[in-house]
Amino acid sequence: MTGKRVIALCGGIGGAKLARGLYELLGLDLTVIVNTGDDFEHLGLMISPDVDTVLYTLADLNDPERGWGRAGETWNFMASLAQVGGETWFQLGDRDLALHVERTRRLQEGQSLTRIVHDVARRFGISAEVLPMSDDPVRTIVATDAGPLPFQRYFVRSRCVPVVRAITFEGADAARASPELRAAFKQPGLAAIVICPSNPYLSVDPILAVPEMRELLQETEAPVVAVSPIIGGAAVKGPTTKIMAELNIQATNASIARHYMEIIDGLVIDSGDGSEAASLPVASLTTATLMNSLDDRVTLARDVLDFARELASSPQRVRPRYSAG
Amino acid sequence: MTGKRVIALCGGIGGAKLARGLYELLGLDLTVIVNTGDDFEHLGLMISPDVDTVLYTLADLNDPERGWGRAGETWNFMASLAQVGGETWFQLGDRDLALHVERTRRLQEGQSLTRIVHDVARRFGISAEVLPMSDDPVRTIVATDAGPLPFQRYFVRSRCVPVVRAITFEGADAARASPELRAAFKQPGLAAIVICPSNPYLSVDPILAVPEMRELLQETEAPVVAVSPIIGGAAVKGPTTKIMAELNIQATNASIARHYMEIIDGLVIDSGDGSEAASLPVASLTTATLMNSLDDRVTLARDVLDFARELASSPQRVRPRYSAG
Repeated sequence: MTGKRVIALCGGIGGAKLARGLYELLGLDLTVIVNTGDDFEHLGLMISPDVDTVLYTLADLNDPERGWGRAGETWNFMASLAQVGGETWFQLGDRDLALHVERTRRLQEGQSLTRIVHDVARRFGISAEVLPMSDDPVRTIVATDAGPLPFQRYFVRSRCVPVVRAITFEGADAARASPELRAAFKQPGLAAIVICPSNPYLSVDPILAVPEMRELLQETEAPVVAVSPIIGGAAVKGPTTKIMAELNIQATNASIARHYMEIIDGLVIDSGDGSEAASLPVASLTTATLMNSLDDRVTLARDVLDFARELASSPQRVRPRYSAG
Repeated sequence: MTGKRVIALCGGIGGAKLARGLYELLGLDLTVIVNTGDDFEHLGLMISPDVDTVLYTLADLNDPERGWGRAGETWNFMASLAQVGGETWFQLGDRDLALHVERTRRLQEGQSLTRIVHDVARRFGISAEVLPMSDDPVRTIVATDAGPLPFQRYFVRSRCVPVVRAITFEGADAARASPELRAAFKQPGLAAIVICPSNPYLSVDPILAVPEMRELLQETEAPVVAVSPIIGGAAVKGPTTKIMAELNIQATNASIARHYMEIIDGLVIDSGDGSEAASLPVASLTTATLMNSLDDRVTLARDVLDFARELASSPQRVRPRYSAG
């Protein structure tokens, strides 16, 4: 592994934490590919929750307590929206709102989401490249016992209460990778691909559902490493284990490894789950994966990159693409 | 004059002050017809500055210092918009923004501006009827020495600096009065029509440029009274006298009276301008027209209504419609 460029696949809050750690180490050698399956139109605005969480987190503009949205946020827009009878189930902070309004305006002018996100990242002083997984619409639909729900209706409005039967990604089959995304995989010096500890079913699967994304991952010679979002049989945040139970999947690292089996060369699991390492169907690294501070994030990022370097030089590469290589 | 219903024609800040005074006296017997020639699309949002100023002023939600926008306003959206590279020449407060977002969403759903404004007025607890002058788009264009400028570009972005050559109202010829607006004129018990002391050329003329509006004013048997925006040869606020000079019109109450000649039965001028009364081509009332406090507004409103009552019972009605009546 001579190059130092790294691609991270990322959903929202949990994944963005590791992306922040990687960014600290890699700067402009990092490309973050972000889930857009959660994107939706609300109040006439085009909202890209995961992309924005990544942008705010990389720029240190995020609210560290709440996890989503911006630090120092105010909520006068929402209070006033309630007053004029608007829909208030999705919280939009006053500062956050500017990004939605400007994105919507530019999309309506015909600009690509990729270009808009690129410009905003530069304005936020982010040297890493942040790329939406596709400029074509992909919409995550959660089939539940209460019927099919668009992602934000399930996640925010229904607070993940309905029982999940299946998750589908509307439009994914027809979605293309952007030229910028293809270029990120094709440029020389790609050292590793990191799947951040986002929810595999809700946040990473939509990325993998874009056919070209899966092909690019199959074709790359760089090692692919996932960081498990499961610690001690539970997720740090969000409905990961609830969904796993509802889909009849055990909340174990082995389940995560099997889920990513065709894609990854190795899985990173938490120190407390060391006893699970032997049962995993892929190579693994056991280290502290809980990320509270920036130090935690950087330390985990360094461990993940070291692990990837090790895998790259290992003779035991098992994925099909390597046997053809 | 047996009825007590009053219609006020109104632009933004100056006019809204008198509308507020009339509202204090009349409550649900007041209908305010508001200029929409200043309306424009900005950042993908449909903005109706004069309508909003009237709504905020009647609901006591307006900022009394600044004149426009809401009290207790915050500006985090604008700060953030600057950060992401959006256009910032038109100030949109966080609270104010909710009305623009909700109006835009409802207009895009096909709802009329009249209905939206009606609902917002009710939510704000306003018992008076607030009606846009038309649901059809009318756009005030200011022809200047710097070329033609849409109203907000002239008024806000260029700060009224360019020299005005002419003012036109794009779309006015084809604009219809709404059924609600026609009904306001046709309901029994209309006691008076008041033209508020808004800028006659920029804020009242667009209302009068809607052909049906002019017809309704010609046909009504209620007295029409205008309050002059000129006090001591100057306007309280805004570019009225600058524009008058550029259009080669003397900044006098006589000029205002002549401007409204075909429409009004009487003009209300300020106490300090009493010496001009004799030179006016219409009946006049001289009283304090400067409105600082709510008391000032109510007092002026009462004077205006008394004056209208006097005119209604006077044998000296001079407008053409009366000779036919």
